[in-house]
Amino acid sequence: MASSLLHCSDKLPFMDVEAILHMKEGLGETSYAQNSSLQKRGMDTLKSLITNAATDVYISQMPERFTVADLGCSSGPNALCLVEAIVGSIGRVCGRRSSQPPPEFSVLLNDLPTNDFNTIFFSLPEFTDRLKAAAGSDEWGRPMVFLSGVPGSFYGRLFPRRSVHFICSCSSLHWLSQVPPGLFDEAGRPVNKGKMYISSTSPPAVPLAYLRQFQRDFGLFLKSRAAEVVPGGRMVLAMLGRQTEGYIDRRTTFLWELLSESFAALVSQGLVEQDKVDAHNVPFYAPSIGEVEEEVRREGSFRLDCVQTYEISLSSSGDAKEDGRTVSMAIRAIQESMLSHHFGPDVVDALFHRYTELVTESMEREEVKSVQIGVVLTRL
Amino acid sequence: MASSLLHCSDKLPFMDVEAILHMKEGLGETSYAQNSSLQKRGMDTLKSLITNAATDVYISQMPERFTVADLGCSSGPNALCLVEAIVGSIGRVCGRRSSQPPPEFSVLLNDLPTNDFNTIFFSLPEFTDRLKAAAGSDEWGRPMVFLSGVPGSFYGRLFPRRSVHFICSCSSLHWLSQVPPGLFDEAGRPVNKGKMYISSTSPPAVPLAYLRQFQRDFGLFLKSRAAEVVPGGRMVLAMLGRQTEGYIDRRTTFLWELLSESFAALVSQGLVEQDKVDAHNVPFYAPSIGEVEEEVRREGSFRLDCVQTYEISLSSSGDAKEDGRTVSMAIRAIQESMLSHHFGPDVVDALFHRYTELVTESMEREEVKSVQIGVVLTRL
Repeated sequence: MASSLLHCSDKLPFMDVEAILHMKEGLGETSYAQNSSLQKRGMDTLKSLITNAATDVYISQMPERFTVADLGCSSGPNALCLVEAIVGSIGRVCGRRSSQPPPEFSVLLNDLPTNDFNTIFFSLPEFTDRLKAAAGSDEWGRPMVFLSGVPGSFYGRLFPRRSVHFICSCSSLHWLSQVPPGLFDEAGRPVNKGKMYISSTSPPAVPLAYLRQFQRDFGLFLKSRAAEVVPGGRMVLAMLGRQTEGYIDRRTTFLWELLSESFAALVSQGLVEQDKVDAHNVPFYAPSIGEVEEEVRREGSFRLDCVQTYEISLSSSGDAKEDGRTVSMAIRAIQESMLSHHFGPDVVDALFHRYTELVTESMEREEVKSVQIGVVLTRL
Repeated sequence: MASSLLHCSDKLPFMDVEAILHMKEGLGETSYAQNSSLQKRGMDTLKSLITNAATDVYISQMPERFTVADLGCSSGPNALCLVEAIVGSIGRVCGRRSSQPPPEFSVLLNDLPTNDFNTIFFSLPEFTDRLKAAAGSDEWGRPMVFLSGVPGSFYGRLFPRRSVHFICSCSSLHWLSQVPPGLFDEAGRPVNKGKMYISSTSPPAVPLAYLRQFQRDFGLFLKSRAAEVVPGGRMVLAMLGRQTEGYIDRRTTFLWELLSESFAALVSQGLVEQDKVDAHNVPFYAPSIGEVEEEVRREGSFRLDCVQTYEISLSSSGDAKEDGRTVSMAIRAIQESMLSHHFGPDVVDALFHRYTELVTESMEREEVKSVQIGVVLTRL
């Protein structure tokens, strides 16, 4: 398991991402489970790509045991959504070929050790019931599905050598293993003042620092998976990304800008110190297609079958007030662990009150979209 | 995964053991993590038996990946204790044979879906650090250990076919998959009045109902493991048991008798209804060596290498008051989920207040011991 290293020389206020970043646990009003409908829509966009790729691997190898991993599964209803679709899809293929019994499925759900695995496991009986019902109505035999939770950072090894046939990862790989080093000058002063991510006002050192961290992390991700995936096995990866090769794609930076703006409001009310805001940077990077391609080529173990961008409208209901709240609650469920760590838990309510207002105002003016990159890779 | 079936015809007040039984979660004062020192002592008694058996399997097979499972791992410090000893033991063997790189370890921690896996996973970084430190001081290479949590009942399949080299299970197999059917007469009246487990006053139908349930459950356990363990693989199982072939071994029934006595006190105070106490039975059975041997022989997939009983003194400190409290808190951490389900959460404090008094009084009079059965099995 990779650990996020502390670069002391960088005088960066340290955030151990692996120990802190987690989607809001439980099933309450602000939980990730209750506020992940946007991620679900991202998944739905890619679902047929994922099930087709997994089924292709199964058909070409026909193993007795088919091992599937979801990396960054989080908790809540999304966690079991993709693996359920994969098991169903392969089960139906076997049902159509009456001589072919379905394989035993080993399903590996991965996330950081601080993820709320308990909530996933509690929902397991329902998952089993749904699979049984699907198998019954589609007339393929009840599949044997062995599910396990694998805690650890995907920026490092997670599974034994050559043990996995298919990997998917949605809405996770834009999270870096750490806040990039290089965001403070030699005197320890923050270089990205007032902002928490790459912004049009950021000096060139900022996007460069982020790109370097993405390259290190994504390279390590690919190297780790190369050891684990069987030859001919596949990965479908989806993450927030850019449609431009330039560092600024408004659809990526937009929601960060509004969060910085919300902090500015708290500073002006005396609720947060400006220094704290200046020192806060997020462990996030939205790459371009070219940047993803370059790392895949450099690592060299995977063939790039397909890479493309998708736009997902965040204005899902058409009602700006409702959509604004949905987006704000989704961002809160993701960000709360990190923001509480840096600013203390007391600012969170006020921050997201302002954030909801700003997001809603934007959604009244225009349709807000996010950009995802989807990649299909085959292990050589 | 096996489900505990509802026997409607039996008019038994239904307790879905799989959904309810779990050691008290978290790290608080009444948590299992804080109150499992007795189980730890049971484990320590068997530790060398377990590590020797695991190391023998490794040496005879030398697989590149060595898969170990702990069934009924619970949460808290005990959860990682046995697997840590196994990894260390095999690592040292490889260290002494300089040409032999250690295998990759796949460690599967199993318990019911309601177990607190989060608390185990939170402690993972410390576990990794301890393994690294041990590897460093013993001069064997840093082992690659891939850990996962596998939620599900061990009275059913948990792992893919022929995928596990070594299985251990401590202090878990005395829990049945359900309260036995047959503890109510045809009119739905409880036959084991005032008692919650086999007692010297129980009619013969009671021990028979418990034995039948144990036979069904342990038979299913062995059949499930037979599918999962590789030929030559081993299991070391330890559970509470009896030293007598007769149903009453005072060391087994003693703590249950005191719990029934505590309930009687609550009934006389008007805090609990007698009917509720009469209808409460525990999903527990402490088998004899002969009963274990018989099921192993009947199932037929495992060779019985060794079976013996161990006595463990519960009077660990010698101070009856301290020991009484330790035992009472341990029983509470185990029982609380089931007792709260049947009697409501409000009775628990009062019940264990009285129970602590009764246990302490007994420990002032005599040394209290429990009996464990340890079994070593090899997959044919």
